[in-house]
This record gives sequence, structure tokens and C-alpha cells, in this order.
Amino acid sequence: MGHDSKLRGVLAPVVTPFGKNLAPDAGRLVDHCRWLLSQDCGLAVFGTNSEANSMSVDEKIDLLDALVEGGIDTGRMMPGTGACAIPDTVRLTSHAVRRGCAGVMMLPPFYYKGVSDEGLFRAFSEVIERVGDSKLKIYLYHIPPVAQVAITLPLIERLLAAYPDAIVGVKDSSGDWSNTEAMIRTFPGFLVFAGSETGLLQTLQAGGAGCISAGANVNAPAIAALAANWQSPDASAAQEKITGLRTTMGRYPMIPALKATIGRHLEDPAWLALRPPLVELSRTQRDELAADLDKLGFNMPGLRQQASAHAVAT
Amino acid sequence: MGHDSKLRGVLAPVVTPFGKNLAPDAGRLVDHCRWLLSQDCGLAVFGTNSEANSMSVDEKIDLLDALVEGGIDTGRMMPGTGACAIPDTVRLTSHAVRRGCAGVMMLPPFYYKGVSDEGLFRAFSEVIERVGDSKLKIYLYHIPPVAQVAITLPLIERLLAAYPDAIVGVKDSSGDWSNTEAMIRTFPGFLVFAGSETGLLQTLQAGGAGCISAGANVNAPAIAALAANWQSPDASAAQEKITGLRTTMGRYPMIPALKATIGRHLEDPAWLALRPPLVELSRTQRDELAADLDKLGFNMPGLRQQASAHAVAT
Repeated sequence: MGHDSKLRGVLAPVVTPFGKNLAPDAGRLVDHCRWLLSQDCGLAVFGTNSEANSMSVDEKIDLLDALVEGGIDTGRMMPGTGACAIPDTVRLTSHAVRRGCAGVMMLPPFYYKGVSDEGLFRAFSEVIERVGDSKLKIYLYHIPPVAQVAITLPLIERLLAAYPDAIVGVKDSSGDWSNTEAMIRTFPGFLVFAGSETGLLQTLQAGGAGCISAGANVNAPAIAALAANWQSPDASAAQEKITGLRTTMGRYPMIPALKATIGRHLEDPAWLALRPPLVELSRTQRDELAADLDKLGFNMPGLRQQASAHAVAT
Repeated sequence: MGHDSKLRGVLAPVVTPFGKNLAPDAGRLVDHCRWLLSQDCGLAVFGTNSEANSMSVDEKIDLLDALVEGGIDTGRMMPGTGACAIPDTVRLTSHAVRRGCAGVMMLPPFYYKGVSDEGLFRAFSEVIERVGDSKLKIYLYHIPPVAQVAITLPLIERLLAAYPDAIVGVKDSSGDWSNTEAMIRTFPGFLVFAGSETGLLQTLQAGGAGCISAGANVNAPAIAALAANWQSPDASAAQEKITGLRTTMGRYPMIPALKATIGRHLEDPAWLALRPPLVELSRTQRDELAADLDKLGFNMPGLRQQASAHAVAT
């Protein structure tokens, strides 16, 4: 029952490091992906937390190629490919499928607001027909607070009826548990991922597939361990600890906070860079965040070893 | 005082016709631009009403080239070039400047919500620095109901201070007159365009530059006449008639209604096509809209002649 079990569990919307002139830094991205995989965390590259929509399609294609060339397993990869323009979505999706990605996460076109389910159905349909590849596996990306365009239950129903092989799951970043639960109950076999690790245990208990969550960029070990042991007696305590950490990070703008945390643990200030319109944390914010995380005993085991191993190898 | 007087007055965010496989139809677009120019209406191609964000950068570059090759005056052109990703904005903006466009209309990056003025300043700044051309003239595009990311007065002030030659105006599609008025009063010489023809007279009376408005795609003759004669005694009556027509059209989804109206007057059903997520009017809606417009005595003088002249010429 269900699809693509290799993607079940925890995935990180992998943050994207930027180098000189804010160009994507493939080397550091490969390192970070290696660390995530070493923690049994899958790779939802090109998500919201990846600043994916701040990159051109060409930049994303080049990064994806660099990941493959860097030996990253595309079987654990679910790149975000949804853009406002169908030709852009088709180009990146086709490339991801050709490179063997196990799935793609697809935003609806998000420029126009108040659009109809009919229009969104046509958008996804057009993409599926144009990609025209039976290996295409789509995870719909429902994130109304950012995209402002929703993936409704009736839309999912219609897409599943028309494309039962291509439409395999959803990431629900609505923050509304009743919606996540309804997605799980309404569509048996459909892979429903919580949009935050704070809902991981609840999602798995209800029959969901896991979570795709910002916090996994830094807290992958604990979150992946919970996904693996969610039926154990101490799962609730583990969830509570995970939620506590996420709540602490949530006091800061999330993407800069993730990058600051990785940069601190690697002693690598290059990780602080963000593409506008996002801005880095102030020095004060970074110090406060670091102190907050230290108080919780937070660390990122193996992160530096991964980066140095790569630095030696290249 | 002020910049680029050739762009003052009325501009249409030119609707984009699509042909086979929803490819942009350059021939029909050239025809429509010719008609608009013949009515003294400037060309804000690639705006919201142009479905610009439903097209790739490559498609827009090709269309712009086709317009130039079709003899359309780039001195009357203000293409929309703002995208979510800075490299996309830079590519299209650079191309527009190279082709001689009198200005560009620039959305802020619109994927992330709740971003800071500092982040938006950096985004525009990055674009201006990368384009690096003194001929770049930017009209900021403030359309919070769609972009959900605002161009605030403090942001404009900061941009004007840093880039007084590149930042020349704004299109205010907030629908909030107090905001339009504040933009006009706060920044002398700054070219402020109303986002709807319903505010044209008020904008001109307050010292604004004109309007860039959906309705100009079909009602260009009346709107351009008002812009030319706004100080005449019958300007109020003309504004009232224009507002009446726009209100009537506003009962239907705007972009499909514009295309249906052009298609009807040309007896050319190809004009009905829209790219998902937008959908065309139903047959019933089209009939009702046509009847509504007929009741108002609406027509599009010269439209068919323009199209047939071109059909003969090519």
C-alpha cells in the first residue's frame, strides 16, 4: 500500500548555501546533503527553506547536476519544482525525473490569488502531460501562508482520479492539523507529510508518511530517530524535546536561523549568506539563538567531520 | 520636472494571446500593440494582466524581440520584469534596456511574505547594480492584493536616495487612494501611475502621471482621451463613463473578460485562451458580458482594421 517507501520518514527542505555574488555554492550543499543522508534524513532540496524561488531554473538544474555528480542518492531526493510559469515547472520537473529523483514536490502556480480548483487542476495536468514520463511522482505542496494558493481536498481528489500514478502525496504546511488529518483519512495510500517536525508523531500515529520540515536541516538526528521509533514508549518525550527546539528556533526568522546554526557549528561564516529579499540574523540575534540552543544541549553530531572529509577529498 | 514624459498618460498592461499548446502568439500581440499605440495608449507588456508570471523569461525575451521586429516603438514600452529570483529579473530587465524600452515595471520578489524593507531594498539594489546600465528606468510595482508584498513609502524614499536616476516612478495597484496621494505628495517629480482607470482623473488632478490599467486593453480610446483632456470641463463626465464600463467588466474575472471582449470584436476565438491557473469565461458569462457592454454602447474603433491590415501585410 502506498508509494515510494524510500521517501517515507523525515526529509529536510535543504537550505542552499550561497557564495561569491550570491551564486549557489554546490560544494557546501553537497556536504550538507551528505550529513543529512548520514542521519537518515531525505532531501527535499529546492523547498521554501531552500530559497528555491529565489533561484532561476538554470541555477537549480546546475545544482541538481552537481548533487548527482557529488554522489548524492537521487532515490532519497524530492526536489521542489513548482513555479508560477508552466514552462519553468516542466523544465525543472523533467530534469529531476531524468536524473532519477524519487519524487518532486510541486507548488501550485502562486502569482495569481483566488484562482479556481479548475484552473489549478489544469495547471498540474498540463505539467504532467508535458513531462510525459511514467516515472514522475508528484508530492503536492500545500503551503497557504506563503504561496497563498491552496491545494484543497477536492483538487487532490480530482488529480488522484485523473493521474493515480503521478500524484502520490502531499506536504501539508498549512499548520492546521484537521486538514492534515483529513488528507490522511480521505485518501488511503496517499503519502501525507507534515510540514513541521512539531506534528511528526501525530502524523505518523494517524497513518501519515512523515514530515518535511525546516528544523531537520539542523535537528535531523533527533527527528529521524523519532520517525524510526515512533511506536516506542518514549516517543512522546522525544517529540516534546523536538518541539521545544523548534519553538526556540521559531523565535527567529527560520531560514536565517538555520543558516546561522549550521554556520556556527561549522565555524563557517559563508553559511550566513541569504538571497534578498531575505536577510541574515543580526550579530545579537545570532548570539541569542546560540545561547538558546546551547541551553537545550543542542548539537549537530558529525557535521564538521562530513565537511572536513569532503574538503580533504576535493 | 520628472522623467520620461513619453510614458506619461495611459498604458495598457497588454494581454497576451496564446496559440497552439498555449505558446505566446507574437503576431496577435503585435496587432494588439499596434491598435493600442494608434489610440495613444502606451504598452506595459508583461504585467499582471499579461499573464507575465505564467511565462518563462525566455518566452518573454522572445516576445519582446518579436515586438521590436514587428515595428513596435520601445519608447512607448514599459515591460514588467520583476520575478521572484534576482537572476530572472536581471536577465529580462537587461534585455529590455538593451532593446531600448523607455522603462520597466518591477514587482518586488513575491514568494516570501512578511519580508523587510531592508530585504526588498537589497533585492532592487542587487538588480540595479547587476544590470549596471544608466538607461535603466524603473517603475516600482505596488500591487499588494496579488503580490502580497508591498512597496512602502519608506522603501521608495530609500531607493530614491540611493538610485535617483534609476528609480523614476511607481504603479500603485493598492486600490487605496490615500496611498496613491501620499506617493504623489511625498516624492516630487516621481511618476505615479494609478493602477486602475477609475482613478485616472483624480490621479492627474493630484499631480500624478497617469494610469496603467487593465481596462485600457479594450477601452483605450476613451481612457487616453480623458488623459489628454483632463482639464476640460467634461472630464468628470468622461471619467464617470469610463468608471461605469470598468465596473461592469469588474463583475467578471478581469483577464478572461478582456480577452473575451477582444476576441468578440475581432471575431477571433483564438483570443479566448488563457494559461492555467486562469480559466476562460463560460459561454454564458461571455454572452452576458457582451450584452452588458452593448448596453453601454461600447466598441473598439479601428481594432479589426488593424488586425486585417497586418494579416494582409504578412
